[in-house]
Amino acid sequence: MRVVEFTPTRDQYVWTFGGAEPVLEVSPGSAMRLWTEDAFAGRVTSSADKPSRVLNTKELNPQTGPFYVTGAEVGDTLALHFVSIEPARDWAASTTIPLFGALTGTDRTATLQAPLPELAWIYRIDRARGIATFTAHESDFTLDIPLAPMMGTVGVAPALREVRTTLVPDYFGGNMDTPELRAGTTVYLGVNTDGALFSVGDGHYRQGEGETCGTALEGAMNVTLVVDLIKGGAPAWPRFEHDDALVTVGSARPLEDAWRCSQVEMVRWLEELYGLSTMDAYQLCSQLCLSPLANVVDVNYSAVTKIAKALLPPADPYGGMHRKLRAIGEQLD
Amino acid sequence: MRVVEFTPTRDQYVWTFGGAEPVLEVSPGSAMRLWTEDAFAGRVTSSADKPSRVLNTKELNPQTGPFYVTGAEVGDTLALHFVSIEPARDWAASTTIPLFGALTGTDRTATLQAPLPELAWIYRIDRARGIATFTAHESDFTLDIPLAPMMGTVGVAPALREVRTTLVPDYFGGNMDTPELRAGTTVYLGVNTDGALFSVGDGHYRQGEGETCGTALEGAMNVTLVVDLIKGGAPAWPRFEHDDALVTVGSARPLEDAWRCSQVEMVRWLEELYGLSTMDAYQLCSQLCLSPLANVVDVNYSAVTKIAKALLPPADPYGGMHRKLRAIGEQLD
Amino acid sequence: MRVVEFTPTRDQYVWTFGGAEPVLEVSPGSAMRLWTEDAFAGRVTSSADKPSRVLNTKELNPQTGPFYVTGAEVGDTLALHFVSIEPARDWAASTTIPLFGALTGTDRTATLQAPLPELAWIYRIDRARGIATFTAHESDFTLDIPLAPMMGTVGVAPALREVRTTLVPDYFGGNMDTPELRAGTTVYLGVNTDGALFSVGDGHYRQGEGETCGTALEGAMNVTLVVDLIKGGAPAWPRFEHDDALVTVGSARPLEDAWRCSQVEMVRWLEELYGLSTMDAYQLCSQLCLSPLANVVDVNYSAVTKIAKALLPPADPYGGMHRKLRAIGEQLD
Amino acid sequence: MRVVEFTPTRDQYVWTFGGAEPVLEVSPGSAMRLWTEDAFAGRVTSSADKPSRVLNTKELNPQTGPFYVTGAEVGDTLALHFVSIEPARDWAASTTIPLFGALTGTDRTATLQAPLPELAWIYRIDRARGIATFTAHESDFTLDIPLAPMMGTVGVAPALREVRTTLVPDYFGGNMDTPELRAGTTVYLGVNTDGALFSVGDGHYRQGEGETCGTALEGAMNVTLVVDLIKGGAPAWPRFEHDDALVTVGSARPLEDAWRCSQVEMVRWLEELYGLSTMDAYQLCSQLCLSPLANVVDVNYSAVTKIAKALLPPADPYGGMHRKLRAIGEQLD
Repeated sequence: MRVVEFTPTRDQYVWTFGGAEPVLEVSPGSAMRLWTEDAFAGRVTSSADKPSRVLNTKELNPQTGPFYVTGAEVGDTLALHFVSIEPARDWAASTTIPLFGALTGTDRTATLQAPLPELAWIYRIDRARGIATFTAHESDFTLDIPLAPMMGTVGVAPALREVRTTLVPDYFGGNMDTPELRAGTTVYLGVNTDGALFSVGDGHYRQGEGETCGTALEGAMNVTLVVDLIKGGAPAWPRFEHDDALVTVGSARPLEDAWRCSQVEMVRWLEELYGLSTMDAYQLCSQLCLSPLANVVDVNYSAVTKIAKALLPPADPYGGMHRKLRAIGEQLD
Repeated sequence: MRVVEFTPTRDQYVWTFGGAEPVLEVSPGSAMRLWTEDAFAGRVTSSADKPSRVLNTKELNPQTGPFYVTGAEVGDTLALHFVSIEPARDWAASTTIPLFGALTGTDRTATLQAPLPELAWIYRIDRARGIATFTAHESDFTLDIPLAPMMGTVGVAPALREVRTTLVPDYFGGNMDTPELRAGTTVYLGVNTDGALFSVGDGHYRQGEGETCGTALEGAMNVTLVVDLIKGGAPAWPRFEHDDALVTVGSARPLEDAWRCSQVEMVRWLEELYGLSTMDAYQLCSQLCLSPLANVVDVNYSAVTKIAKALLPPADPYGGMHRKLRAIGEQLD
Repeated sequence: MRVVEFTPTRDQYVWTFGGAEPVLEVSPGSAMRLWTEDAFAGRVTSSADKPSRVLNTKELNPQTGPFYVTGAEVGDTLALHFVSIEPARDWAASTTIPLFGALTGTDRTATLQAPLPELAWIYRIDRARGIATFTAHESDFTLDIPLAPMMGTVGVAPALREVRTTLVPDYFGGNMDTPELRAGTTVYLGVNTDGALFSVGDGHYRQGEGETCGTALEGAMNVTLVVDLIKGGAPAWPRFEHDDALVTVGSARPLEDAWRCSQVEMVRWLEELYGLSTMDAYQLCSQLCLSPLANVVDVNYSAVTKIAKALLPPADPYGGMHRKLRAIGEQLD
Repeated sequence: MRVVEFTPTRDQYVWTFGGAEPVLEVSPGSAMRLWTEDAFAGRVTSSADKPSRVLNTKELNPQTGPFYVTGAEVGDTLALHFVSIEPARDWAASTTIPLFGALTGTDRTATLQAPLPELAWIYRIDRARGIATFTAHESDFTLDIPLAPMMGTVGVAPALREVRTTLVPDYFGGNMDTPELRAGTTVYLGVNTDGALFSVGDGHYRQGEGETCGTALEGAMNVTLVVDLIKGGAPAWPRFEHDDALVTVGSARPLEDAWRCSQVEMVRWLEELYGLSTMDAYQLCSQLCLSPLANVVDVNYSAVTKIAKALLPPADPYGGMHRKLRAIGEQLD
């Protein structure tokens, strides 16, 4: 099988969903090997770095892409199966950025208090052992924690002629920052423009749910994925499929609305899969779902609804697309 | 004085802030006479119209513009003084649109309930008497109410390479929908791109604060304004100046954050005008401000902070820009 | 006409709605002359006071009452007409309290930032001229501002066996902190317990809309009011009537929900007064209402919907109760 | 070991935190065997029941208690270890209640739409197999799902002289509705009044995270717990401890504030346990935490922060209280 490979040069980074020329056209069924830079565009490299000095606020969260998917039209469903997501470096960086994060006033939750200190933490990464080492700034404390690689950002071009920063997730995906997007996940996104124009980025070597301080263990990533297309059937909000779970993601403010979007999307999915009425699907979702938060720091927050397949009758979402793409992925070495 | 006139043809309507080529270049100090189509793009004309049938969801809230302001650079402050805002038609339309509005579930406040009925109300407008006539759908009730013309939307191109729908207000202005934007108002907007690229639209012959049902008395408008430019000094959020009041507008969700943005902006303005410390300005704003809501229906809500000049010591914001533009406006016939 | 007079001794202050024995029984139609202590229980007296040192967090917002209204039963409507609200002192105090206020993290909007400085401002009050004098802490700035006396708090005992702090407004009224509650206002509150058990307090010599920093010009007050009772008809949320306006008040978080409560209450009121359908009342409210914020600092925020009577056909809410009580008030000297 | 047993009679149910006389005094170290009625007070028994007809809105969420803990004083920390939580019936009920739930307008998120249908689902419970059977209303669909018993409600009397409905969670615990409160959990609650006055109720045979439709598999429960007391150290928000995790719970609106409360509480706990600075604890929490939602339906929403002990260095919260109480529990048969 041919595998499309793409590593952007620095001037090929894109900072928006929509608005950028595609770097490649890929046909449904293609596998891709991609490299993604970290969300700081590689600019935080030392625990002595001050984010407000080293970062360029116009160059945050670079994406690899966009890719034009042959045949994708408005109303179709793009399927992206993440075969592997592997740290490409032996270190990762996390920071606190002034007036950004969940436990501080921000440009929107505007307050008059002084910002929290801006700090950078550099984690040493032992890829063989799957370990990241945290080193405290203000005490003699280190901790080895397991890697749990994931992609913070995947999305397509938005509707309504918009071009949107890669910093803010929405119905088109984007910077959802959920640990549910890991190796083995198939992502379903509604297509809003010809070619879908998807891109990926913002690898996290590990992240807590909510991404409280605003950044994860940000790191460059090697990503292998398989692309496919379902004609029609565009979901209102991103859907994911794992071997063992169905997942929906909503992004909005306040946080309850992000979660409501993911919940209604899951209710609709249960209706589709099992022929349930809305009220029966509502009841079932209420008793079966997990609700792990994703990000509570971006201009739209993201929340997840997740149901274990083991709790549900067998079903074959999108005609078995996840199984199919998983099988393709397994053939790649 | 030369007055730039511009009435867009239907194919010149623009639907975004950013992303559209300027239709004209204007130099600071210019007066302009503009015509704006209503937010429905003129498609609701009868009380029998069903919004979901007659509206084109990709063609809502058309703007007149964008205009390139000579010399405007990032970080500058665009000043737009609205000399007059006059209904251009003898009727106006208001509607309820399924799953849009403040007293219904929406695409974000996602619920499972059936939408409210979709209805259109056509108001007859008596421009001479300044009266709009409301006619109830379901009872024998009519009511004459005074016109209070305003512009729902004014904004500039956003930062971060974005192109944003004209439906959602933000730091760059846009669809704020505040009755504070009426004849006599000077609007100050931070410039994010060369030329500022401002546009205006969404005339309301009258609107309550909050725009509860989602639409006002929507109508085409004749707008006369004067454009000017202040080098530097870009406010974080839109500021307005009336003969008798200072006004700031924040746009975000939840609503308290929209209001917080407007409050912090007013605190900053008081600091600038009177050399007050932050805490003294905070105290003074707390006791003096009015807080009339603007819109509680768009993807960002808008809230206003307003202080009567009569309550404050004399001051000359932006070197007397409002007085200067007002004087220019008075010379136009 | 007999006028019931009551000035609480310090040990008679009450700190809750519900849970306190009535101090007096009053019959519908009674006039009352009351004195209320300020929200600090009189403990802030100098601009050198540190709120966290001088305040007792268990003794904030003392109420005068509760009063048992003869004949009041669950589901009835208590009417309280405020004849006069007059400053009882020649000074007023305002403060910033650590982690309280709209432009700071709080115990609920929990952040890790350091609190803002805690400061007290003492305003000199010239009652004859109706003036309060603001003196800045950190610069040589003073400002005379007009008094605009109002009551921050009025409420009845809650339902569901609850006893609720006087700090948090809700459906039963309480600490709504709206400048709409001034001399001339009639307040309508649903009765939740036998006798209604209303109390009043928290006089403000002046307050901005939103009460941004968390406190107004807090001061002791002389209050004259007339009590009456309407059998049945309990509104879901407090309604006010002015000579020239109808007002509803909602209290909740986030702020849009507080406002939604007030809006639905106004829609219902318009339906009742004019026999309008819900959709027609929704439309009319959308075009006519003002939406001035009340408080954005308490554990429930409060928002107001207000419609000028001049915009509406003549109506006689509650059988002319406001006119009747106003006439009684005018007979008091 | 003596075990205190208590099964309330119907007239002993309590509906508030605070405001009720203790039914028993228990000394620290005591084990208790309790029975709790379901949140409907046993009134929903058939899938033909209409909640609005069979429920008494003043008698919802009955608690078993309150219990006076010998020696508990304001500022102390009550520890409750749940040894077992076992369904006491062979059926459970769930319902949709008009204008209650996450995917409908409510009394606070007030809208004008018609309520969703009100329905009851009765689940057959096979306690031996640990299975509940869902039966759809509108199609021929049944599903066996595993039991996962938990307590929706546990709390102490509030501060500030308040008496609070058992329906609304807050800093004092209450109706948090998190599946994290299951057999094996130790709950730590700050004491606000002499004797703490704790009670428990609202057993759920299973619940999804968020309790979307407003109710879980509501059922009577047999609860065994061990009570203990830590002098001082009251947490600001409830903390839980599992064998394998630390958990904090915040309750507020909007949902981000509930979560922020739980996050700050966890940051504080990490500071205490490991001597970390606030910023280092913030960073560590950001990368390690899970954030499963609890309830998004009550007047305060509840959100959880959870960190696996396996990710942290060994620690002994509260001097090993959890281990100690677990050992006591194991000795009970």
